[in-house]
Amino acid sequence: MTGTPDATRPLAGVRIIEISSFVAVPLAGMTLGQLGAEVIRVDPIGGAADYHRWPVTGDGDSIYWAGLNKGKRSMAADFRSQDGQDLVQRLIADSGVLITNVAGRDWHSYDTLTRLRPDLIHVEVSGRADGGTGVDYTVNAGIGFPLVTGPAELATPVNHVLPAWDVACGIYTALAVVTALRHRDVTGHGQQISIPLENVALATAGNLSLFTEVMVNGTARERIGNSVYGQYGQDFTSSDGVSFMIVALTNRHFRDLTELTGTTKAVAALVDTLSADFTDEGERYRHRDALSGLFTEWFSQHSAEEITAALSATSVLWERYRTFAEVVTEDRLSANPMFSPLDQPRIGQYLAPGLPIAIDGAYPPAVAAPALGDDTEAVLGEWLGITTDEIGRLTESGTVA
Amino acid sequence: MTGTPDATRPLAGVRIIEISSFVAVPLAGMTLGQLGAEVIRVDPIGGAADYHRWPVTGDGDSIYWAGLNKGKRSMAADFRSQDGQDLVQRLIADSGVLITNVAGRDWHSYDTLTRLRPDLIHVEVSGRADGGTGVDYTVNAGIGFPLVTGPAELATPVNHVLPAWDVACGIYTALAVVTALRHRDVTGHGQQISIPLENVALATAGNLSLFTEVMVNGTARERIGNSVYGQYGQDFTSSDGVSFMIVALTNRHFRDLTELTGTTKAVAALVDTLSADFTDEGERYRHRDALSGLFTEWFSQHSAEEITAALSATSVLWERYRTFAEVVTEDRLSANPMFSPLDQPRIGQYLAPGLPIAIDGAYPPAVAAPALGDDTEAVLGEWLGITTDEIGRLTESGTVA
Repeated sequence: MTGTPDATRPLAGVRIIEISSFVAVPLAGMTLGQLGAEVIRVDPIGGAADYHRWPVTGDGDSIYWAGLNKGKRSMAADFRSQDGQDLVQRLIADSGVLITNVAGRDWHSYDTLTRLRPDLIHVEVSGRADGGTGVDYTVNAGIGFPLVTGPAELATPVNHVLPAWDVACGIYTALAVVTALRHRDVTGHGQQISIPLENVALATAGNLSLFTEVMVNGTARERIGNSVYGQYGQDFTSSDGVSFMIVALTNRHFRDLTELTGTTKAVAALVDTLSADFTDEGERYRHRDALSGLFTEWFSQHSAEEITAALSATSVLWERYRTFAEVVTEDRLSANPMFSPLDQPRIGQYLAPGLPIAIDGAYPPAVAAPALGDDTEAVLGEWLGITTDEIGRLTESGTVA
Repeated sequence: MTGTPDATRPLAGVRIIEISSFVAVPLAGMTLGQLGAEVIRVDPIGGAADYHRWPVTGDGDSIYWAGLNKGKRSMAADFRSQDGQDLVQRLIADSGVLITNVAGRDWHSYDTLTRLRPDLIHVEVSGRADGGTGVDYTVNAGIGFPLVTGPAELATPVNHVLPAWDVACGIYTALAVVTALRHRDVTGHGQQISIPLENVALATAGNLSLFTEVMVNGTARERIGNSVYGQYGQDFTSSDGVSFMIVALTNRHFRDLTELTGTTKAVAALVDTLSADFTDEGERYRHRDALSGLFTEWFSQHSAEEITAALSATSVLWERYRTFAEVVTEDRLSANPMFSPLDQPRIGQYLAPGLPIAIDGAYPPAVAAPALGDDTEAVLGEWLGITTDEIGRLTESGTVA
């Protein structure tokens, strides 16, 4: 708002209206807010479809909603009334930027709004590329990943738990907004931007060659469990039942792994037997089962503690599998400068992540999420200059809340 | 380069040097290029660690590398020689933007390079938050997702096949660059930006409440197979063995699903038996197994074709699970305006995705990837004004290739 060149708040002075629900657009708004923009999430009175989404506290407050709307301001309005729509339109025209995943509404369409604000930046996230509806878990089913995820012997699809397409789509949305802001700074023109969630998934799968290898080689990726395709990467279990993920991308990694596991001679024998060249990543991948067979013994004969100590002394890429609870209890969050204690009304105090982008050494920190309508009066007053009396009438008539 | 206000190339005129390998930073560079920037990927002679990564063609050319470096220019230089380092430093100073995941090299560190270009934008992607090495598959193991992915009865971790953290990190990197460009336009200052891959994963899991529910409620997410947490979402199989993903987020979705499957009365009976309120998403989630038991019969008695036709007439969110090969052969790519035929040297002709962001109705299209060193001469000549004779000497001495 001040125009001060604070490097960790590079979007200070930018105002954004968000009409959203669920993950992608809320994440985009939160990200833009963490970069310094003033983001107002405008919801229908009573909240959008995500206002009570699980996980919830014992009192029924949504931990989920609080997590994806940190640092925003909140206003609630009657989206069905002309007066409510007019107010929101005025806010959008005033801010100059709308991000939304509520597609197909005439009253906040690009055509309607550019009559009020010709240089508007209007970003709409939709479901399917053909205009149909879709959410992360349906889009993911149609792309191909669930049928190659999980143990090789499994015949059923395995969904991802991370809504990866929503997350990617949300960050693309933030990117589209900032790019359009810079373009408007230079040219004076706004933009109409459309990001179908399905196209985020299709582009990503395409960029990562999963369609291309079908078109070029005539072969499709197979289900290979926890192996890393085209490289040597595999999970192993310690004598005390702890799983580790091991990746060897380079010859040095691989040599360290064979030395660590005492299999250097056995691997050399394998080279003779199979006529394999283990300096070639493709050969390490092709013969991964034979190699894993050799390495498994060492892992199964050592405890997690011993394995951790041994791997730490090598170049090998590795990690111990952890539960979400273990991540929290091992104090990895409290030791990480991206996390800070957040006193979140309705939810409680917890360690909350800021933006995962450190600017000049500092992570933009987490700020508490509002409750629905917390900022209705302030926004109407500050932005639109509406008097307290008039706001009182709007509240009484149910136009805002 | 021209400064023409072409809305679909908003970063025209921006030059970026990329020193990278694998997914995150190459995806960032490609994304910035698709937005109009001129991106030069500078590699060591012979290529970085990803130049031969699988999948490869029958001739051994990397389909993978071509997929993540579309539309860039390529230059190769001897990174170990002073002369090679000097040339790359001059290019970085000239462009004003470096993106890299090759961390910890003095010769292209922020401190070294800002002596040559004080307003440099320097973006470094690293592995672990504590400075250690890490790749997508090790970072993912340490966060928690693999231990809650896959069938509930499974005891082993299930890795993701999509390198979701790399993808998210790459888009965050592009976002950081554009935000820093806009900040520099306004203030004249560059930025030092650091993005640890692990922090992208930790921030995302934190934003999505997976750590917060442990800290606030004392409970951690369980392994629930293909169910959608906190909502009604489940996979079903048709009489001819095809899997479908079904999601009902709203009361309307749920009502349509019960009508479709002829279970409206049975669900009403369940409400009485369980004292459940299925207008509450949490109740639909809690009793998901009982509900799925009712719905399963209808799916198992109908063919995939019948199910598709029936679902299409409802509001229910759904998708048929497809293999990567099915996505290609069903012509969904050729019908999608984001994909266009690409004549990719060394690889062949295929349908390649552009950027999944449509600007004023158009998707920035895919452009072929270079081969290593394709643009070395042109870049040295155009950018640094080095003569053809001098470039010849640099090539002969092995400084560039």
